[in-house]
Amino acid sequence: MKQLDSEELMKRIHAYIEQLSYSREPKGLYDPIEYVLALGGKRLRPVLMLLAYNLYREDVESIFSQAAGIETYHNFTLLHDDLMDNADMRRGKPVVHKKWNENTAILSGDAMLILSYQFMMNQCPPEHVQEVMEIFGRTALEVCEGQQWDMEFESRNDVTVGEYIEMIRLKTSVLLAAALKIGAVLGGASSADAQKLYDFGIRMGLAFQLQDDYLDVYGNPAVFGKKIGGDILCNKKTYMLITALEQAKGENREELLRWLNAAEFVPEEKIAAVTAIYNKVGIAGYCDAQIEKYYQEGLQLLNEVDVDDARKENLRIFVHHLMERKL
Amino acid sequence: MKQLDSEELMKRIHAYIEQLSYSREPKGLYDPIEYVLALGGKRLRPVLMLLAYNLYREDVESIFSQAAGIETYHNFTLLHDDLMDNADMRRGKPVVHKKWNENTAILSGDAMLILSYQFMMNQCPPEHVQEVMEIFGRTALEVCEGQQWDMEFESRNDVTVGEYIEMIRLKTSVLLAAALKIGAVLGGASSADAQKLYDFGIRMGLAFQLQDDYLDVYGNPAVFGKKIGGDILCNKKTYMLITALEQAKGENREELLRWLNAAEFVPEEKIAAVTAIYNKVGIAGYCDAQIEKYYQEGLQLLNEVDVDDARKENLRIFVHHLMERKL
Repeated sequence: MKQLDSEELMKRIHAYIEQLSYSREPKGLYDPIEYVLALGGKRLRPVLMLLAYNLYREDVESIFSQAAGIETYHNFTLLHDDLMDNADMRRGKPVVHKKWNENTAILSGDAMLILSYQFMMNQCPPEHVQEVMEIFGRTALEVCEGQQWDMEFESRNDVTVGEYIEMIRLKTSVLLAAALKIGAVLGGASSADAQKLYDFGIRMGLAFQLQDDYLDVYGNPAVFGKKIGGDILCNKKTYMLITALEQAKGENREELLRWLNAAEFVPEEKIAAVTAIYNKVGIAGYCDAQIEKYYQEGLQLLNEVDVDDARKENLRIFVHHLMERKL
Repeated sequence: MKQLDSEELMKRIHAYIEQLSYSREPKGLYDPIEYVLALGGKRLRPVLMLLAYNLYREDVESIFSQAAGIETYHNFTLLHDDLMDNADMRRGKPVVHKKWNENTAILSGDAMLILSYQFMMNQCPPEHVQEVMEIFGRTALEVCEGQQWDMEFESRNDVTVGEYIEMIRLKTSVLLAAALKIGAVLGGASSADAQKLYDFGIRMGLAFQLQDDYLDVYGNPAVFGKKIGGDILCNKKTYMLITALEQAKGENREELLRWLNAAEFVPEEKIAAVTAIYNKVGIAGYCDAQIEKYYQEGLQLLNEVDVDDARKENLRIFVHHLMERKL
């Protein structure tokens, strides 16, 4: 069976998404949707869906609509999240509520969510439609739950590591997992395989998000694409901060709490001081260990999928490549 | 076959919606959804769905989930529309973005839209799921298009009657029509009947919205439930205003334009003056004729539905009752 690597799949799904045209009116509703989808990005979720499908079948183009559906859903969440976070830029361009206005961001986002369902249902084989839509709908709701927890954590000081992991599972992991599971289901995988791929996606999503948090502190600004220290400045209760609050003792703990409660500060100073405390407490090590644990658990789950090992290679290379950012 | 009148159906679907509980967390996401759905309202769309279903089958409770789905979708649109319009109250209670905040209104609305799909798919017979979801998805998108046109019309002075009718068809009629068609499809209606009921819903929706516009000027404040003259104050391009601009000549036209362009005015004076011009031009007559035309076209379509005439009586009584508000 023909195996397609992630780069090839990325190019093809990217081209498919680019040629989608919303020849409907009013333009004021559909232009922002085209704008958001044209911003690009890694097309991570559709590529995962196609890689999972390709474990079982090679006619990947037959599920391009479902792959576009999950990407459209993901971009809908970015659109509304950017509005809720009052962000200015996304992928180097102004966000929709700045380029247009807030009402446009709300309504075009709503239409995007509806379109993601349309793509997901479009030419979905009747024997799979119920299961695919069940996975998609449940996941879509869970992502909203994750976003709500994330917003609620901003005003709480007692978030535990367990709560944080559950939040990023909902906000980030379940959509990656659903992409893999839907691809597997459409490819005709057994229920056991489809679930293993889902669980693999959950672990990889957790590893990926923890790595993102790590890079927010220790990343190379030239590579990371966002400003370093953003999470520290806004006291975001990441795995790193929560662990530092648990592990820091004496002076270190007092200094950390002082920075968290400081109403006024020089941004660079706060970033440098909190990072220094992280260094003293050895937060990088805790984080590394956690990332490695989820990554290895994920790989083990992938190993257990009942498919020729050689066929899994593209999926392994892809997740390895994603996690390499850190090294 | 047992025929249920709209009052009985309303009670039963109301009770069904009331007992739905979102035992999921976080409460910050689901409490606003329960709040909105508990505000009540006439449950017009679910009742229409059940009445259409009841033309063919009597086990109406088997489609309560779909009926709740269309009501949840409708309430999602109210939630986001109220945010976009910056409204304060809905059904005598503070709207979600005032009782909670704007982010809550955005995110809980998104979750409501997803829930409406969940309800619509839940226990939907496999032989109908594709068609039902196709009708629902297309309609959901059209309602967004209607809302976008409505917002764009605010800053335009050249809206035609044709454009206005198309806007209210999208914003109001298609959801009533879809409720009827989904009920018919689930009841096992022929394609021809399902389409006739859809077209009946379109006509009734247009008649209903035009009547709402009429009541905004000529209604009895004690009965109408909203302040009289709201559309006049904000220069809303309703059928009445557009027709008045077409029909008013000489002095009347000049005075109307003066009021439309007035930056400052005493609200009661503007309402009284514009209403006086409507009276001179005979706008009530134009509006009445248009309402009656759509209403009669709708009834004719219902007559053509291939079902024993006696079985259609509850549907006829229901729409008659809805239109009676005016008399």
